This record gives sequence, structure tokens and C-alpha cells, in this order.
Amino acid sequence: MLRIGVIGYGYWGPNVVRNFSTANGSEVTMVCDMNQQTLKKVKKVYPQINVTDNIDELIKSPDVDAIAIATPVFTHHDLAKKVLEAGKSVFIEKPFTYTVAEAEDLVELAAKKNLKLMVDHTFLYTGAVRKIRQLIDDGILGNLYYFDSSRVNLGLFQHDVNVVWDLAPHDISIMDYVIGEKPQAVVATGIGHFGRGLEDVAYLTFYYDHNIIAHINVNWLSPVKVRTTLIGGEKKMLVWNDLEPDEKIKIYDKGVQVKTKEGKYNLLVDYRSGDMWAPKVDSTEALKLMAEKFVDYVENGGTIVNDGIAGLNNIKMLEAANKSLTNKGGMVYI
Amino acid sequence: MLRIGVIGYGYWGPNVVRNFSTANGSEVTMVCDMNQQTLKKVKKVYPQINVTDNIDELIKSPDVDAIAIATPVFTHHDLAKKVLEAGKSVFIEKPFTYTVAEAEDLVELAAKKNLKLMVDHTFLYTGAVRKIRQLIDDGILGNLYYFDSSRVNLGLFQHDVNVVWDLAPHDISIMDYVIGEKPQAVVATGIGHFGRGLEDVAYLTFYYDHNIIAHINVNWLSPVKVRTTLIGGEKKMLVWNDLEPDEKIKIYDKGVQVKTKEGKYNLLVDYRSGDMWAPKVDSTEALKLMAEKFVDYVENGGTIVNDGIAGLNNIKMLEAANKSLTNKGGMVYI
Amino acid sequence: MLRIGVIGYGYWGPNVVRNFSTANGSEVTMVCDMNQQTLKKVKKVYPQINVTDNIDELIKSPDVDAIAIATPVFTHHDLAKKVLEAGKSVFIEKPFTYTVAEAEDLVELAAKKNLKLMVDHTFLYTGAVRKIRQLIDDGILGNLYYFDSSRVNLGLFQHDVNVVWDLAPHDISIMDYVIGEKPQAVVATGIGHFGRGLEDVAYLTFYYDHNIIAHINVNWLSPVKVRTTLIGGEKKMLVWNDLEPDEKIKIYDKGVQVKTKEGKYNLLVDYRSGDMWAPKVDSTEALKLMAEKFVDYVENGGTIVNDGIAGLNNIKMLEAANKSLTNKGGMVYI
Amino acid sequence: MLRIGVIGYGYWGPNVVRNFSTANGSEVTMVCDMNQQTLKKVKKVYPQINVTDNIDELIKSPDVDAIAIATPVFTHHDLAKKVLEAGKSVFIEKPFTYTVAEAEDLVELAAKKNLKLMVDHTFLYTGAVRKIRQLIDDGILGNLYYFDSSRVNLGLFQHDVNVVWDLAPHDISIMDYVIGEKPQAVVATGIGHFGRGLEDVAYLTFYYDHNIIAHINVNWLSPVKVRTTLIGGEKKMLVWNDLEPDEKIKIYDKGVQVKTKEGKYNLLVDYRSGDMWAPKVDSTEALKLMAEKFVDYVENGGTIVNDGIAGLNNIKMLEAANKSLTNKGGMVYI
Repeated sequence: MLRIGVIGYGYWGPNVVRNFSTANGSEVTMVCDMNQQTLKKVKKVYPQINVTDNIDELIKSPDVDAIAIATPVFTHHDLAKKVLEAGKSVFIEKPFTYTVAEAEDLVELAAKKNLKLMVDHTFLYTGAVRKIRQLIDDGILGNLYYFDSSRVNLGLFQHDVNVVWDLAPHDISIMDYVIGEKPQAVVATGIGHFGRGLEDVAYLTFYYDHNIIAHINVNWLSPVKVRTTLIGGEKKMLVWNDLEPDEKIKIYDKGVQVKTKEGKYNLLVDYRSGDMWAPKVDSTEALKLMAEKFVDYVENGGTIVNDGIAGLNNIKMLEAANKSLTNKGGMVYI
Repeated sequence: MLRIGVIGYGYWGPNVVRNFSTANGSEVTMVCDMNQQTLKKVKKVYPQINVTDNIDELIKSPDVDAIAIATPVFTHHDLAKKVLEAGKSVFIEKPFTYTVAEAEDLVELAAKKNLKLMVDHTFLYTGAVRKIRQLIDDGILGNLYYFDSSRVNLGLFQHDVNVVWDLAPHDISIMDYVIGEKPQAVVATGIGHFGRGLEDVAYLTFYYDHNIIAHINVNWLSPVKVRTTLIGGEKKMLVWNDLEPDEKIKIYDKGVQVKTKEGKYNLLVDYRSGDMWAPKVDSTEALKLMAEKFVDYVENGGTIVNDGIAGLNNIKMLEAANKSLTNKGGMVYI
Repeated sequence: MLRIGVIGYGYWGPNVVRNFSTANGSEVTMVCDMNQQTLKKVKKVYPQINVTDNIDELIKSPDVDAIAIATPVFTHHDLAKKVLEAGKSVFIEKPFTYTVAEAEDLVELAAKKNLKLMVDHTFLYTGAVRKIRQLIDDGILGNLYYFDSSRVNLGLFQHDVNVVWDLAPHDISIMDYVIGEKPQAVVATGIGHFGRGLEDVAYLTFYYDHNIIAHINVNWLSPVKVRTTLIGGEKKMLVWNDLEPDEKIKIYDKGVQVKTKEGKYNLLVDYRSGDMWAPKVDSTEALKLMAEKFVDYVENGGTIVNDGIAGLNNIKMLEAANKSLTNKGGMVYI
Repeated sequence: MLRIGVIGYGYWGPNVVRNFSTANGSEVTMVCDMNQQTLKKVKKVYPQINVTDNIDELIKSPDVDAIAIATPVFTHHDLAKKVLEAGKSVFIEKPFTYTVAEAEDLVELAAKKNLKLMVDHTFLYTGAVRKIRQLIDDGILGNLYYFDSSRVNLGLFQHDVNVVWDLAPHDISIMDYVIGEKPQAVVATGIGHFGRGLEDVAYLTFYYDHNIIAHINVNWLSPVKVRTTLIGGEKKMLVWNDLEPDEKIKIYDKGVQVKTKEGKYNLLVDYRSGDMWAPKVDSTEALKLMAEKFVDYVENGGTIVNDGIAGLNNIKMLEAANKSLTNKGGMVYI
């Protein structure tokens, strides 16, 4: 039984505590938060969990084997560093850190200490993303043409980061996982409306080798919630609508073949339009699967899709995207 | 009765002929096309219309008062110039021309000759776009935050132009009309997949003054058809789904107010979420309204929303977007 | 070339004329309508078609080989009888006749005269219905459990018949065709709201052998248009949404197996929920296919799915349903 | 603080316990269930709640002021009777009882003992149903034409009752509440497929005075989940889709006026089609509101919409519907 200490019980922390409590192989033994009211709430729901407002108490507790960090991104590096130095493995919220340098520091330290780092890229453990990856791996889609994701909604405005840092880590982690290649460069545009210097609407384009392009549309100011990703492939095309309760993934037997012969006006375009197919998608809660994977990773090692390196790549892309955003759309190599 | 001659009876030409035939105040007296088979088709449906494969015959015909041009964009400038020089007003397909210089030349020539130019930005005459413009004019949406349009589908691949020249003229004309300001600059990204040097997927971001941003997503390789525009405003937000048969426009009484007070962690965000409202939208065929407006414009003058100047602005934005696209992003001032 | 005369150019007549004009193997040579204005409209669109307000002229015309009747149902029997007696085959709008006796009379007369009758059950020629029939024939759905159809909309109110006579012929013809058995009895309920003694909302339940039930919901007073049919089978279940532009038919690999063992509280229910699949559906205009089938039927004989017998069955079910409706829901055997 | 004892912790019981635990003014002090494993589950989540498998212990406990019954319908009457006889008020699952006689017995007993009965018609406390009732009360819809509800899904098969007893209590309670009149008669049709003598598909039509009709479609064998109600009114029409996360209720400014003048072919039909409007609907959990209302009802009296009389009416309609169902249609007066 891996005993987990959790730092931070704000927006996402309760989900972390709930899942590490119910996952096979783990239990939550201590929760730390600066807010006394919050700690009382923990106690009410989980009388058996110890609470503290002292981070060091949690980190050093002999009842805590590994630590989950669910605090604002600015605190990630320092907290994770302390934990690693105390000889404990870390499960950490996305985004991993606020700079590439911080992420590299943690990856290096974990390696040196032979400890584990897992970044909470929850979507990688959803049935939908696992199915998409499998479809691509199995060659069902053929060579990829593009990845186009929209993640828009009203709110939740963050205090300290823009919409790219808040929402794009999801899309970038998914894109990174399902495309299976590294982008060469990014162009980002966007705008903020409330005089805080923080963008609330942004558009990211990633250029890959092999004529693949990825686009991410993130927006805190949309009246409607959209969570849709289009993936175009040579053989098949796919639409993932995460808001559909039942048919999240639809695969279209649609495509196009273009043959130019003897001059531009002899373009031959062959369209193919066949059946659509919505495979059953596993609906197990992703965070629970991930919690169990974390236990296995800490106890038995092996490889995971959301280790420190994956987190570091995510931050590299975020940092590059934000650099381009500051330049209003100049290309930034990654 | 304004007697119209139509040049080009390919993809869009039949719609032009049909609408100028049924519009009040106009009739089609002659059609010109290079293809004899095509001319036979015209004759079969419209026995009363004269046909020719000789452009000069049509242009100079005493039975033709004004001329509609529905040919590929590369021919627009030369054809329109000939028509204007023959002293006749011109109705011309979008995109107006292939370069800004060509567009300027036509606008200048028309002014000098005191003739009329109307560019076929059909969407400006749809009930939906007219309603959106009215809602913005009436202050219902308040100050605008963003305009975000997706126009994706499978095909129709063009021989000679990329997806930006093919589809974006629609979105740009709409954006131009409903925002009512001129963008300062554009950043465009995209990619082509068939070795023709022509993009089939592209993303355009327009930067405006007053913190407005506009984004256009055009794609010839989507398995599903999407025609959706989100418009965010200070007071209300709007979604226009042109594929909805009945409720094309939905107005959401949703919004957000952000107040930062004494330090970033004291961010106060006030969300408002109220009723949704779908106003009835006039469903008269846009092309018919536009045909009748053309007649009125030629006969009585006045102002229209899709005159040569509007067409020229459209080309300026397209040219700038394509320049940015060639640079793989990078801001281009308009 | 089968030369068709068309009687009636009201709501549906123009579609009949257009399709027999463009179908392979047929042309329309004459149209008859009582309204002179209507005849002028015909002439304007089809200068080559002769028009008349004299039914006998059309029926006896040597330029007319077969006749399509698109007039109100009350006139069907007498008109069709005249045509058959004049030795010409008949294509006739649904509902076939207003009574079973009339339908039997026409079927008998056509047989005696060795002439053909085709009833315009258009839906049987749609790609969707043909696909559903094929799926059932191929055993994909397994034994059928139920057929449940909704056909609701605002209007079009009929002068002389209730909503059952107006809309249910469609559902009954489809149900009849895809289930492939005859119902034993019908129960119908409904109501009218405008003091005319004509129902505008009605619900029909057909009982079949083998535990199959069919339900039809027809309504002229719905704010939204619904055209949805659910078909439950032992192996698969199907949803046909005729308003979907692309994915009209969805087949669900869903089912249930119930085993009762030793007392009612030992019920074992085994649910199966797998993939969904939307087969490509042919989108050829049904009326055109049907027009060509009519030509083939008249010229070469053979069997069709919408002959006089099929029309007669349809009327038997309508008559029984209306009898039940009058009784406010008593069972009527068919 | 009203101390609640809960009998039955199966499918719905956990929701009852959770809501009476968190509602203002109530707490759950004891839970009774026959299954020891179930009682352990209660203890794990709610260490402070006493558990027992002895119904009398719970009923007589001095720590229990009122009792919620969440057991199968066959046990309702006997359990509720015992509770009332012990001098405690009752909150009871739908359907209230299995016969009208049982329901009448309980209503009478409660009245005699001056105790309260509340039947768990949860939907009456949803924001959607409250809004619909208010719209009708305010005259927005005008005179009602019809109420048409579909509640279909795959499963959950019940051991002991058919789909009418399982699902229709919801629709009947809603219909009863929003129409505000009593139906005169019912016609029901349906069928069962698993040799248990229990219908899994059923259709109910209720006839009201004033030309109102209500139809309920319940089905355990549908591949898709549908929870849609159409309500037609003279002034406006309404669609309630309970599966929509945000726009549950849409009100259409659509209608029709029929004037017959001088003979049936001079029917004048005037269609009205205007805006659509989706009012914001309160999203507070209905069961929580109902729990708080129960506390208030027990402590302060007054009137509620789901008292014993309302429950009794519901059973009258269910009993009549099942009688008609057994007869395969045929009107049954209520």
C-alpha cells in the first residue's frame, strides 16, 4: 500500500485525494493546505486522513511514501525539489513547471536520486485518447495530415497564468502522445481583454516534419463549451467530441486523392466517402487509472507516458508558444 | 429591366443566371462560356437566353446592359477591365481579383468611368449576417472581444488557388462587415499535403485595435462540415451555426467581469449566465437579394456593402494573409 | 420513351413533373390542372409540355402513355378508374384511396385490364429505407422487437383529411416494408384542436405476431421537426434520423439478455454495449429512382414494392387506425 | 434538526441518504437494509450513522423522527403503515404503492394520525419542471394542446414491475403537475419480449377535458437515451430536453390559427414562426430541495406538490394504464 501525501486541496486537489484513496494499492495519509477551513473540509469527508498546514511536516512524515502536488504552477518547482530531496517520488499537476529550466532541474534531480516523477496529464489515461493512439498505432488513419483541437468555455479565469498555460497543456500532451513526433516550431496568436496582460483567447499552430500541422484553439470567453478534436489522416479521418456522452470518437472513411497531371487545369481529385464508425470507448475514470499507474511506477519502475520527460516536453512547447504569443505570431523553434 | 450578360457557367454561374433571371428588375439575356457542352445545357434550361463562346460578343452586345463574371479568379481583372472599358457595370465573383494592384486598378477605372462594381460576397445578404450586424449595431453585444470562424469540409479542391483564396473570402467579408473596423495585421499558418504548393489547411489571425481579435479556420480535409462562428462581446455572446436549419443564431446572456484588487491573488471574477435567445432569421435566398440590390445600385446608385472598395479590402487581407502563410506565421501589416 | 401525363400540379405535382422529366426513359408530355394560373406556371418552366384543364383530354391524348395522379385523395379512385378504363397505367399519390373498397376496386380493375398501378410511397426508394430493409434481410438486427417512428412538425394542415391520412401513410409503408409481416390489429388515439373534427395529433400502435410492436407518432402541431425511427432487434438496434444530412442510420451493437431463474428476484440481465456504425446511405433522389422504376414496371412488368396491393394494405391499416381513433383507442383487427 | 431513518440502501437509497445528510435541517441517524454487506458500505462512507437489519429497531428508535422508504414497491404499503402507526411521518419512493387501495389506506391513515406523507416525485423539484409550470401558470403557452413525453433507454430492467410502473410515474407526476387538471381516461399499448409477462415497451395516451391529450412513450430497449417532452400551446410551444446540459427548455414562438370559411376548400391556416428562447433553469439538485421541503413540511405543515394525494393520483393513473395495457388498448376511465 503506497501511502500518499497531498499538498494543496483547492480546485483539483479533492479529485487527487479521492482517486488516490480509492485506487488499488494506494491510500492518502496526509493532506497539507495553507487554509484552515480547507483542512476542516478534508477532515469532515476523510476523518482518517491527517491534515497539516506545514509542508515540511508532510514531506518528512514517516507515514508518507510519495507526494502529490496540486498547487499553483509557480510553486511546483520548489515544492517538488523539496520532496525529491527528501527522497520521495512526486505526482504533480499540469503544467509541470513554469519554465523549461525548472522542469529540467526536476527531471535531473529525480534521475540522480532514482526517484519517480509523474505529471498529471489526465487525458492520456482517458479511454478516448488511448483509443485514438491505438487507432494511429494500428495504421487505421494512415499518415497524419493535421490535428485540430478546440477547448473553449466560459471561465475558469486563473489568477496568475494565461489561457495557454491553463488549457493548452491538455491539448499539447494529447497531441504529443497521439502524433508521436516532436514539433519543429510553433506560431501563437492571442489577446487579453481585462488589462492584466494575460491572454484569455489564443491560437497555437505547431509545425511538424512530414507535413503534419497541429492547431489548438483555447478560449476562456466562449458562451458555449467545445471540446472537439479533428484528426485528418490519409486513410481515415477522426472526430473526437469529448462532450458526447456515448459516441466520443467517430472515424470517417473519408479521404481525398489529388493527382496533378499535365498542367494545373488537369487536376484529378478523387474523393472517398464511406461508412462512419464509433468504437466503444472505455469509460473508467482517467484519474483513477493514472493513480494506479503511479503506484505501479513508483513500486516497479518501467515506463509511463507522462513521466518527467513528457512533462518537460510539454513545458518546452508551452514556453515556445508563449514566446511566440508575446511576439504576436512569429515562428519560434522548439 | 436590367439585361444581364453572364460570363462563365461552371460551378457558381448557374446560381448567378438563375437568380438574375428570377430577381425583380433583371433578366439574363446572354451567357458566355468556352465549353460548347455547357452552352447546350444553358439553352436546354433557358431557351430564351442567347449563348456564345465569344467574350467580346457578349461584352459588346446591345442586349446586355451589365455583366456578371463567374470565372476563375485569374481571369477576373482582365475580363472586368474589358467590361468597364466597354461602359458596362460589373457583378463579379469572389475573390474580386488575385492581387491588390488588380483590385485597385478596377476600382479606379470604375470610378473614372462612373460605372458600378459589385463583388459577390453572398453571405452579406443572408438573414444571419444581416441579423448579426444589426445586433452589433444596436449595441446588444457590447464591445467586441473576438470573432472566431470555422469553415471546414471535405473538398472542393481548387485547381489554382489554396484554401485561403477559396474559402477565407467569405469569412473575411463577414468579419469585415460585422466588426466594422479594419484589422491592423494578420498572422497565418497552414500546410498543403499534395505536393502542389497549395495549402489545404490554414489558420488566420487578424489583430484589430481595441483588443479585438479575429480567427479563421479553413480546411478542405475535414471529415465533417463545420460552418460556425463565435462572437464574444462584453454584454452578450453569439454563436452562428449556418448548418442549423432553424436556429442559426443563438445569443447568450453570458459574460465575465474581472476585477483585480490589491495583488494577483485577490482576483475577483464575476460570471454572468442567463437566458439564451434565438431570433428569427430571414431565409430569403441571399443571391436573389443581392441580384436585386445590384439592379438598384446600377440604376439608382447609392451605397452597398459589397462594392469595389469592400472587394479591394478583402483582397488586401487575403494578400497579407498569404504573405504571412508563405513565411509560416510572422505578422504582416495590412 | 414512356410519355407521362400528370394530373394535378399543386403541392407535390411539381416534383412528379420534374422527376418524370429527368428520369431515364420517361418524359412528361401533358399536365392537367383546374387552375389556369397553375397551368401558366407549368408553361413557363416547361415550354415543351402541353397543358389542359380538361381531364378527359389528357387521359385520351395519344401523346400520353401512362398517367401520374397528384390530386387530393378524394379524387383518386374516380380519376384512376377513368385512366385504367382508358387502358393506361397509373402512378398515384399516397394515400392510394380513401377507402379499402376503392383500393380493392382499382387493384381488381388494373389486374383485369393487365395494367400497372404504382403508389407513390416515396420513402421506400430512399437510400435509408433500402439500407434498413437490407440490414433486416441480412439478419444484422436479428429478430425484431419494435418499430417506433415520430413524424412531427408544424403544419401543413390539410383541408380534408386528418394527420393520420396525411402523414401516417409514410410510416405505415416503411413499417410494412421493413418488418415484412402484416400487423394483426391497431390501436389509435388522437385529438383535433380546431373544431373541424379532424385530428392534428395522433398515436398509432400496431400489434404483430412474434412479439413485434410498431408505434407511430404523427403531429401537425410540433414546434420542432422530428423524423426519427427507432428499431429494436435482438442482435442490434437502429436509429434512423432522416433529418441528419450525413449519418442518417446508426446501428448500435447494444442489447439485453434476460434470464429468469428460480424466482423473480433472481433475474439475470446481461447488457451488451459495443460499437456504433453508420453505413453510407445512397443519396439519389428517391422520386427519380421511383419514376425510373415505374417506367420499367410499365414496360417490362416484374414486381415492385409499391404496387396496388401494397397501396391496398396501406389503406387497410389507415382505415383500421381511423376506426380505432374514432373509438378513442379500442383495438381494431386488420 | 429532523433526524431521518432510511429503509433500503439499494439503487436509490444512497441518494436519499446523501441528500438528507447534506440538506439544511435534517440529518440521517439510522439506515436499515437486509444485506450486511450493504450496511458495511454505509458505515464506511458515514461512520456516524447507525445501521441495522431490523426494521422495527429503526422504526421505533428514539433517534429517528421521520422515515424515508427506498425499497421495492411491493413493500411500500406495509412498511409505510408500520411507520405511520409508530407515529412518524414518511418520505417514500415512487411509485407510492402498487394499488390504489393501498395508497388510499396510507393517505387515510396519515390524515387520521395527523402525520405527513411525501412521495419522491423528484422531477417536480427540478428547475426545468418548476420553470415549465411557471410558464404555464403565467399564461405564456396559452391554452394547452398536448403533452408528449419520451423516456427511453437501454435498461434498467426491474425484477417485479413492467416499464410502466418503473418509468411512467415520472412522466405522470410531471404531466399532472404542469397540466394542472385530471385526465378522464387512458389508453395504453405495449409489449414484453422476455417471457416474463412484463412489458418493456409501452405507450400511454391520457385524454383530458378541453381537448388536451397527453402521451407517454416508455421503453427499456432503446439503443439511445431520450428524455424529451413536447408541450404544445395555443400561444407558444415548448421542448424540454432533459439531456441538454445547458439549454433544457426551449420556447418557440410558433403557432397556427385555422379558420374554416364557406366550405372545406376555403381553409385558411395562419402559421406563426418567430423567435426561440431558452430561459435559464435553476440547476440545484432536485433531491436536495425536496429533502429540505420534507423537513419543512413535517415541522411546519402547509402544502406540497407531492403529498399523499398526489401520490394516490399517480397510482390511479398507473393502475388504469396497466388495466388498458392488459386489454391491449381500450379506454379505461380514471
